[in-house]
Amino acid sequence: MAEAFAEESVTVAADRARAVCAGVLAALGAPEAVAAGHAGLLVEADLRGRPSHGLQRLPVLVDRIKAGLIVPDAVPETTWVTPSFLRVDGRDGLGSVAMRTAGEALGEACEGTGLAVAAISNSGHVGMLAPYLEAICARGQIAIALTTSEALVHPAGGRTALVGTNPIGVGIPAEPDPFVLDMSTAAISAGEIIARGQRGEELPPGCAVDADGVPTTDPARALEGAISPFGGAKGYGLGLALELLVASLSRSALGTDVLGTLDTEHRTTKGDLLIVIDPAALSLPDPVAYLGGYLEELRQAPTAPGVERVLVPGDRMRAERELRLRDGIAYPAALWERLEGISANLGTEA
Amino acid sequence: MAEAFAEESVTVAADRARAVCAGVLAALGAPEAVAAGHAGLLVEADLRGRPSHGLQRLPVLVDRIKAGLIVPDAVPETTWVTPSFLRVDGRDGLGSVAMRTAGEALGEACEGTGLAVAAISNSGHVGMLAPYLEAICARGQIAIALTTSEALVHPAGGRTALVGTNPIGVGIPAEPDPFVLDMSTAAISAGEIIARGQRGEELPPGCAVDADGVPTTDPARALEGAISPFGGAKGYGLGLALELLVASLSRSALGTDVLGTLDTEHRTTKGDLLIVIDPAALSLPDPVAYLGGYLEELRQAPTAPGVERVLVPGDRMRAERELRLRDGIAYPAALWERLEGISANLGTEA
Repeated sequence: MAEAFAEESVTVAADRARAVCAGVLAALGAPEAVAAGHAGLLVEADLRGRPSHGLQRLPVLVDRIKAGLIVPDAVPETTWVTPSFLRVDGRDGLGSVAMRTAGEALGEACEGTGLAVAAISNSGHVGMLAPYLEAICARGQIAIALTTSEALVHPAGGRTALVGTNPIGVGIPAEPDPFVLDMSTAAISAGEIIARGQRGEELPPGCAVDADGVPTTDPARALEGAISPFGGAKGYGLGLALELLVASLSRSALGTDVLGTLDTEHRTTKGDLLIVIDPAALSLPDPVAYLGGYLEELRQAPTAPGVERVLVPGDRMRAERELRLRDGIAYPAALWERLEGISANLGTEA
Repeated sequence: MAEAFAEESVTVAADRARAVCAGVLAALGAPEAVAAGHAGLLVEADLRGRPSHGLQRLPVLVDRIKAGLIVPDAVPETTWVTPSFLRVDGRDGLGSVAMRTAGEALGEACEGTGLAVAAISNSGHVGMLAPYLEAICARGQIAIALTTSEALVHPAGGRTALVGTNPIGVGIPAEPDPFVLDMSTAAISAGEIIARGQRGEELPPGCAVDADGVPTTDPARALEGAISPFGGAKGYGLGLALELLVASLSRSALGTDVLGTLDTEHRTTKGDLLIVIDPAALSLPDPVAYLGGYLEELRQAPTAPGVERVLVPGDRMRAERELRLRDGIAYPAALWERLEGISANLGTEA
């Protein structure tokens, strides 16, 4: 049975994946640095084992650019409302452009103010949060990133999708690598439900409900219902709080009014928040020294039966990245052929 | 079997509970407003169905004050490090004093700066977060509160308690009542494990592990092991991120070095963070109007089988509060007798 669903894959070097993606974006009008930056971001997700935020997003992005819903050479408009609050209008550009613009502006401002917040609207899907956080951590600063998404999650006790998968990212400088939390508040991603359905696999219990609100492990029924929040009522409360915070501060949409990251018909109405804190500017101890011993204690903690090692957020992601940098990224053959087709049609050289 | 563990209870009016608690704190040297404020905070937890943060904390608090570990008339020292970052040294005072001092200072500053953060150290247990958030929401401001706690939670994949129960609170103005999330990142409270053990009840699955790291529903085995994070690896990552953020910004302790909220031997080494945002000062829409329709949509959402109504964080807590304000608070008889004994020994009149 499993073999009937076995998916052919093509192994591609990260550099090659980046080049194809950047070529496509450049051919559609993205400035070279923007194309390379966004391609790098998408491929980072594939390298780290988060294909839902990787190159599988490119075909939709291409259609969105062709439809005029994403403007590949948009320049974000930034306004300092107060010395620590930056409003960023993405002008319908790629999500990575506004997010990186915000990260750089906040990083510089924070050297004086100690902390600053950016509220971003009218900007495309930001992809994985971790790479933005890592860039900020590399400057010795702490970062928190939030973004909203299409409503795919049911409220606790409900059965229809009304809340986004609203991820939270937290990056804190540490050695040899920063602490990097990058997690959705949904129990599972929509992409993973689809992938499991294609492979004929069940879902882990507690991840989704069917159209009647009854918990299901059947991917097909889950797709007719809604994804569950992670961790039950608490995860629902957290995801909802993040949605309200992002919307309040970025004047972005709420619930089912959040559109334009998965479809090819609507402008992007979600919002993003980025918070940057500069410990040195606040006369605080260097987090690298202050937190390092504790993180190491966690990694060496006694384990539960069958567990090799306790991990700190970021550890698994980096290990997966190393493997794929060495061995290449296994893309579903159908996806990779489609990407090469798009690339050929646009006459890019990659 | 159940009857053997049935606990006698005494029903007490909220006013009476507050008066007894305030009398005890005042007799031990707390200024009248401080005593009333802290008593009000503890009784609010009992009213809202969170007895782990209610008057059951008073006997330990009394012992801590007598041991000189809590200074009931301490005046917090506040220092504006930058226009939006306030350092608060609680000078070993009651947790509510530093937290309220911070809330008022940030609220005022935010009218100009739009957002401000307080990092609090050397301050006692803050109790439930909701009442602080509500006071800030009443001024039309948004609040986020974090606090660390003794390490009671095992890391995902681990079996020893190394992470705090680290709650997060988010308050956003809304009508008729604010949105108030106030949740721990632990799957269950230590108090609830003890209470279930006394009643001869099992724990819900997934709440705790035994000393070998094997999941258990037996309260006695759970107490020899550790509490699980809510929501598995994601809840662990979130709780740990909050611990690192609080410690970094408030220079407070980490992991098993966090002491002094449950014991009667150590100074309090945990930290608190409070973030206040003033939408009007940031030229943002009034959250009451901006979010209200969405919150109402959630409350009227189609429900899962057996669920009467979808709730928004804060709804259940307020409903429980109304009931107990009307009918009184049912305290375990042994606890209430102990509190009256303490009160009598101190010669208070309450």
